Amino acid sequence: MALFDASLISIESIECLPSGYKIRPIDKADFGAVEVLRVLTTVGDVTREAFEKVYESWVSHKDTYYVLVIENDIGDIVSVGSLIVEKKLIHNCGSIGHIEDIAVAKSEQGKKLGLTLIKTLTSISERLGCYKTILDCSENNIGFYEKCGFQKTGAMMTRRVEH
Amino acid sequence: MALFDASLISIESIECLPSGYKIRPIDKADFGAVEVLRVLTTVGDVTREAFEKVYESWVSHKDTYYVLVIENDIGDIVSVGSLIVEKKLIHNCGSIGHIEDIAVAKSEQGKKLGLTLIKTLTSISERLGCYKTILDCSENNIGFYEKCGFQKTGAMMTRRVEH
Repeated sequence: MALFDASLISIESIECLPSGYKIRPIDKADFGAVEVLRVLTTVGDVTREAFEKVYESWVSHKDTYYVLVIENDIGDIVSVGSLIVEKKLIHNCGSIGHIEDIAVAKSEQGKKLGLTLIKTLTSISERLGCYKTILDCSENNIGFYEKCGFQKTGAMMTRRVEH
Repeated sequence: MALFDASLISIESIECLPSGYKIRPIDKADFGAVEVLRVLTTVGDVTREAFEKVYESWVSHKDTYYVLVIENDIGDIVSVGSLIVEKKLIHNCGSIGHIEDIAVAKSEQGKKLGLTLIKTLTSISERLGCYKTILDCSENNIGFYEKCGFQKTGAMMTRRVEH
C-alpha cells in the first residue's frame, strides 16, 4: 500500500530534477533513506525491520505522513523529506503541514534537491488544503527558506530529555 | 472512547491547579474548548458536529493527538493545549512531541494555567518516550518557555496560503 497518492506531486517538481532523477512517495523497500538521514543527525543502528515498522506506522496514520524520496539516475535514494499534517480546531477545523527532516546525500549537494523537496512538500501541503505550512530552521538557513516563500514568524524552542 | 490514558497526567500537574480545577484529556462533549481557542486566533463558525468530527479524527490517529483541557471549579472549560507525537526514523526510530495551540480564557489568566498545561504536555511527551519536545513561540514569550525547560534552538518559518 502506498503511503500517499503520487499524483499529489506536481509536474513542476518533477521538471526541476536533474535528468534521470525521480521524486516519489517513500516505499517499504526504501531502506536506503535511513543512510541519507545520517547527514542530518544521529540515526543509530536502524535495522531493515525497524525501518519497515516505522513505515507501516506512517501508513496506518491515514492522511498524516507524506514522506518523499528522490532517487538518482542509478536508482539510489539520495534525498528524503517529510510533511506531517496536523488536524486542528482553529481556522474552521483547518489543518497545517509541518515540514521535518530534509536530508540530501553529501555527494548530491549543489543540485537543488533540497529546494525541490521543500517546494514539493509545500505544494502537497497546499493541495491538501492546509492553511499554512511551517518548519523550523537554524538562523543561517532563513534566507534559503525565504526563497521558498516562507517568512520568519517566531522562535523554535526545544526541550531535550536528559541522559 | 478516551483520546488517551489519563494516567499519563502526573500528580504534580494536578497539584499545581487552583482548588476545584481539573486537568484531563479532552472529551467528545467538550465543545466549550472551541470558545477558549478564540483567544489565540481565528476559529470561525465551528459547529458541535464539526468539533465532534475533529475529535473522532484525533481518536482514530492512535498515539498521535494528546489534547488536554482544564476545567474550572464550576465545570467550564477554561484552557486547552495539544501535543502531537511524530514518529521518525532518526534517533533510533524515535518520536518527538510538538506542542501546539495553548489557550487560556481571558477571565482565567494569572492562575498559571498556561504553565501547568505546558508542563503537563511536556511530561506526557517524556513519559511517552519522545527524545525531544518542540514548540514555536513569539520572541516575547521566550522567557516563559525557558522557565518550562525549553531553549531557543532556531527560527520558526511560516508560509501561508494566499487568499
